Amino acid sequence: MDLMSIKNPSFLKDLSINELEKLSEEIRHFLINQLAATGGHIGPNLGVVELTIALHKCFNSPKDKMIWDVGHQSYVHKILTGRASEFHSLRQYKGLSGFPKMNESEHDVWETGHSSTSLSAAMGMAVARDLKKEDSYIIPIIGDGALTGGMALEALNHIGDEKKNMIVILNDNEMSIAPNVGALHQVLGRLRTAGKYQWAKDELEMLMKKIPAVGGKLAATAEKIKDSLKYLLVSGVFFEELGFTYLGPVDGHNYEDLLEQLNYAKKTEGPVLLHVLTKKGKGFSPAEEDTVGTWHGTGPYKIETGDIIKPVNTPPAWSKLVSDTVLKLARKDKRIVAITPAMPVGSKLEAFAKEFPDRMVDVGIAEQHAVTLAAGLATQKMKPFLAIYSTFLQRAYDQMLHDVCRQKCNVFIGIDRAGLVGADGETHQGVYDIAFLRHMPNLVLMMPKDENEGQHMVNTAIQYNDGPIAMRFPRGNGLGVKMDEDLKTIPIGSWEVLKEGSDAAILTFGTTIEMALEASEILGKQGISVKVINARFIKPLDESMMLDLLNMQIPILTIEEAVLQGGFGSFVLEFAHNHGYDASSIDRMGIPDEFIEHGDVQSLLNEIHLTTEEAVKRISSIAKKKQKRA
Amino acid sequence: MDLMSIKNPSFLKDLSINELEKLSEEIRHFLINQLAATGGHIGPNLGVVELTIALHKCFNSPKDKMIWDVGHQSYVHKILTGRASEFHSLRQYKGLSGFPKMNESEHDVWETGHSSTSLSAAMGMAVARDLKKEDSYIIPIIGDGALTGGMALEALNHIGDEKKNMIVILNDNEMSIAPNVGALHQVLGRLRTAGKYQWAKDELEMLMKKIPAVGGKLAATAEKIKDSLKYLLVSGVFFEELGFTYLGPVDGHNYEDLLEQLNYAKKTEGPVLLHVLTKKGKGFSPAEEDTVGTWHGTGPYKIETGDIIKPVNTPPAWSKLVSDTVLKLARKDKRIVAITPAMPVGSKLEAFAKEFPDRMVDVGIAEQHAVTLAAGLATQKMKPFLAIYSTFLQRAYDQMLHDVCRQKCNVFIGIDRAGLVGADGETHQGVYDIAFLRHMPNLVLMMPKDENEGQHMVNTAIQYNDGPIAMRFPRGNGLGVKMDEDLKTIPIGSWEVLKEGSDAAILTFGTTIEMALEASEILGKQGISVKVINARFIKPLDESMMLDLLNMQIPILTIEEAVLQGGFGSFVLEFAHNHGYDASSIDRMGIPDEFIEHGDVQSLLNEIHLTTEEAVKRISSIAKKKQKRA
Repeated sequence: MDLMSIKNPSFLKDLSINELEKLSEEIRHFLINQLAATGGHIGPNLGVVELTIALHKCFNSPKDKMIWDVGHQSYVHKILTGRASEFHSLRQYKGLSGFPKMNESEHDVWETGHSSTSLSAAMGMAVARDLKKEDSYIIPIIGDGALTGGMALEALNHIGDEKKNMIVILNDNEMSIAPNVGALHQVLGRLRTAGKYQWAKDELEMLMKKIPAVGGKLAATAEKIKDSLKYLLVSGVFFEELGFTYLGPVDGHNYEDLLEQLNYAKKTEGPVLLHVLTKKGKGFSPAEEDTVGTWHGTGPYKIETGDIIKPVNTPPAWSKLVSDTVLKLARKDKRIVAITPAMPVGSKLEAFAKEFPDRMVDVGIAEQHAVTLAAGLATQKMKPFLAIYSTFLQRAYDQMLHDVCRQKCNVFIGIDRAGLVGADGETHQGVYDIAFLRHMPNLVLMMPKDENEGQHMVNTAIQYNDGPIAMRFPRGNGLGVKMDEDLKTIPIGSWEVLKEGSDAAILTFGTTIEMALEASEILGKQGISVKVINARFIKPLDESMMLDLLNMQIPILTIEEAVLQGGFGSFVLEFAHNHGYDASSIDRMGIPDEFIEHGDVQSLLNEIHLTTEEAVKRISSIAKKKQKRA
Repeated sequence: MDLMSIKNPSFLKDLSINELEKLSEEIRHFLINQLAATGGHIGPNLGVVELTIALHKCFNSPKDKMIWDVGHQSYVHKILTGRASEFHSLRQYKGLSGFPKMNESEHDVWETGHSSTSLSAAMGMAVARDLKKEDSYIIPIIGDGALTGGMALEALNHIGDEKKNMIVILNDNEMSIAPNVGALHQVLGRLRTAGKYQWAKDELEMLMKKIPAVGGKLAATAEKIKDSLKYLLVSGVFFEELGFTYLGPVDGHNYEDLLEQLNYAKKTEGPVLLHVLTKKGKGFSPAEEDTVGTWHGTGPYKIETGDIIKPVNTPPAWSKLVSDTVLKLARKDKRIVAITPAMPVGSKLEAFAKEFPDRMVDVGIAEQHAVTLAAGLATQKMKPFLAIYSTFLQRAYDQMLHDVCRQKCNVFIGIDRAGLVGADGETHQGVYDIAFLRHMPNLVLMMPKDENEGQHMVNTAIQYNDGPIAMRFPRGNGLGVKMDEDLKTIPIGSWEVLKEGSDAAILTFGTTIEMALEASEILGKQGISVKVINARFIKPLDESMMLDLLNMQIPILTIEEAVLQGGFGSFVLEFAHNHGYDASSIDRMGIPDEFIEHGDVQSLLNEIHLTTEEAVKRISSIAKKKQKRA
């Protein structure tokens, strides 16, 4: 059929299983072709083709509410709800989002990005439904990886107790982004191998009758066994213990089984957990055979060869530079332990894991635990390196504040994907970390200008033993600069003058340094001599350089690829005031007080006027204002 | 024995069970007497007297590491580690902390305050121990309430998988602060009633032999039953599923049983969970009979009568004012649902729960879930009221940002215990909320000057339907002002002039308004006329009033009982700059960049110079500076 013509999922009601299978093929073909051009989360979506179609056949969206945990597996749902024609713009500026978005469709009832929120959202919707005496199914779809996130477990505990009607679909593909870890993963493994054999109650009763009557203590034992039969009647004792009716496991690529189980779930009172086994990348062999997570989300690729199209001769990725430098240091420094919350591949920790398997801890999707585990290690004089994306560190605000900073633990936090990340959009932009970390006492926060300074900063962080220290670094690759052979340490709180100038100064760090240098160049030609400072320590500021600058009484512009509210520029303002300076010629560029959607980073920067042109304009304007006053 | 003479717990090794029992009595007597004068967490500590003594008899602290989750149950541990003589100063300024503190004793190996961190910390210590090839026991002690916190569940999942040696003591008193909720609580309930009968392996094998041989499908069934025997051999299948060896339940007030089980746990390889049943308040009948949590933590009390000493004729508590106003509105507005993470008593939601049991959701210790549940409710056009302490909202930073603010959900967040809280100290001070909420787009944040304005603000929040809105309010009681009969709404972003003045202005809100008025009074007598503004909206600012003030070109002092870094004053500075004003005559008072320990609030305020005198000094100084320049 013509996928482009689909307006809503109601047409599925009339399709036979054969027709559904044909539709699956068409959707797979469509996804493999579309994503070859745009890139996207190909693996997760190929895994849920049948599941999504079966859900939309069985339920009535949007009256029935499907809540896609994480949300990057919602492409099939998007096709079935009338958005096939927009896939050419997937994850692009002003294009189709890679995640559910309420403003795209009434069928997107909940927006996601970070994992493990679906069960809590579903519980909220279930409470609302019951209070309003409405009648609808609420169906959170959560992966086995996301299930280990603390808030999902909090929600399981609550839902199972409240006994509200809800159908939790556990989409078990045996890996989240990378292969899963954790005891729950083992639980699921045992359920998987148990097969789909279901205990028949009458068979068991027959068997029990065959147990001969016995006296004394043994009789009590027999009674106990009978009491415990409920555990034999069901697989999924873990979930049953938590108050759920466990159904499954069911083959997530078999319509007959899927529809049967979904219909059974519909008739079951109270919370149900349907365990669905799916294969990530199903139907596209390179993705299907992926064991490490390469095909979880990718850029464009060649369909025929299954080669992911990579820019040639690019400098090494930031993640790799950081992890490899830590690895180099770990060879001599036995205190170093690397920690990742489910991102060994994204954080490029494979080499570390291979060389020091005992000193590498992957905790799964569990950011809070990761941060406090690091603090625990530090209390024992170890030096944990926590590799974590900026956006995911948000999950561990309290643990950073109380366990790491308050106890002044020697933890090195590598804050990856800091700044705008682009295609993943507003739930993944790493633009809040400065604002939420800056007010944490005892923390050192820094960002390098290039990968050479980056390696020295990593070394600085490892050698630093006076509390927590964090280094932000951007998504993507380094600049390709020459790398020093020997690692140095950089004095804490020291900035660096990159370009001298006497009429104005730009304070900035990381990715926006290039912008500052360009602006300085342009302004130089206009006769305005602009100093450019690599403000590589965001906290503490370089107080002596700050005082020198303020004493020069020249306009100062701060630039940060992070939120303005309470950010670095705000810190500079506070400093100027604390020292009694007239700071009216300080100006700040950064991210305004709004959420920044998906798109290529350059378009986003243009949209929010975080550009060289704007920097030039701002400096000219404050310089002129100052001249006028003088 | 003389408790004051105890230097460390080594003396316990030589005591008989009789002597241990005598010691328990002495410690109970000591605690009941000491806490009658100082107040403190009497219930939790009376519950763990035998457990703590048994742990210190069985293990060698500090080589073996005891990690007290939450930490308010560490008084007995403090007595046994040489701190009995300091109990007169418990929770007082510069006195003994109510929580474990590394600087008090080498036996305090981890500092706590917030719940559910002990397992993660223990895992960090276990990884360190094994890497260093050291030999020590690691013993986190966690309550049944704290176990439902997401990070504790994340840690359980990780620990059970890694199989490290660790002895988790589950201190099950059937309630955390208030009675517990959640499916895990049901699991524990079933284990409790199962008694301490342990399956004997040989008995079971005998029984199995009696099951006659059968053919066909039934044979498979019998095999399955045999496979499942492990579930019958053990209680605690939930924990066994997660990879723990479950021991117990054991009577936590019986030394013989406790010591036997602890010694058994010592010999067990891999992670062990020992389920200990304790009685909160044991040995002090008013606390023992408490079913709602009154005796969890109290102020001073009369030992003879069991009456908690309360100041007479105080105005109603802030929590009560807020919850009662919400209740009043809920009678007419069916959208309202109240949510609490385990604090129905602290948040004074008892009346609400009684009148609208279906519209009251207690999720247990699960702040992340609570916040996203609220967002889920809001998507269904309900109006959730989330009652949460400032310090605990820290646990849900990401959920506030992504689920509530990004989706612009109509959630009303009542931020209780905002500002310094006093005796609970640095882990409970509610001083970060402004700095971590201010940069969240779409959020309205406010704080009332008194309880009358408070009730109008609650009404404003309930009527507001343009996104999330939060109201901070302090710990303790209102001011006793006259309450209006009818509820009004306050225009969003509108400040109020409390006192006119032309030489300077103070911008402040909530508890520090009194300070501002006093300072204005004093400065008035010195001939400096100071305007006082009730900046009741922290975000958005009252922009037109701000501009008027800036145009007056008078010194402005901001005062906030919250961190200065990125706080309200910082916001005022940013605003002035954004609008091109010379803000050098703006000054800011607030909490400096350090953790504020326990003590009475006035002593703490004095220590950090957040006082009327300082306000007077600051204004005089900027006023003079300005005069000099003019």
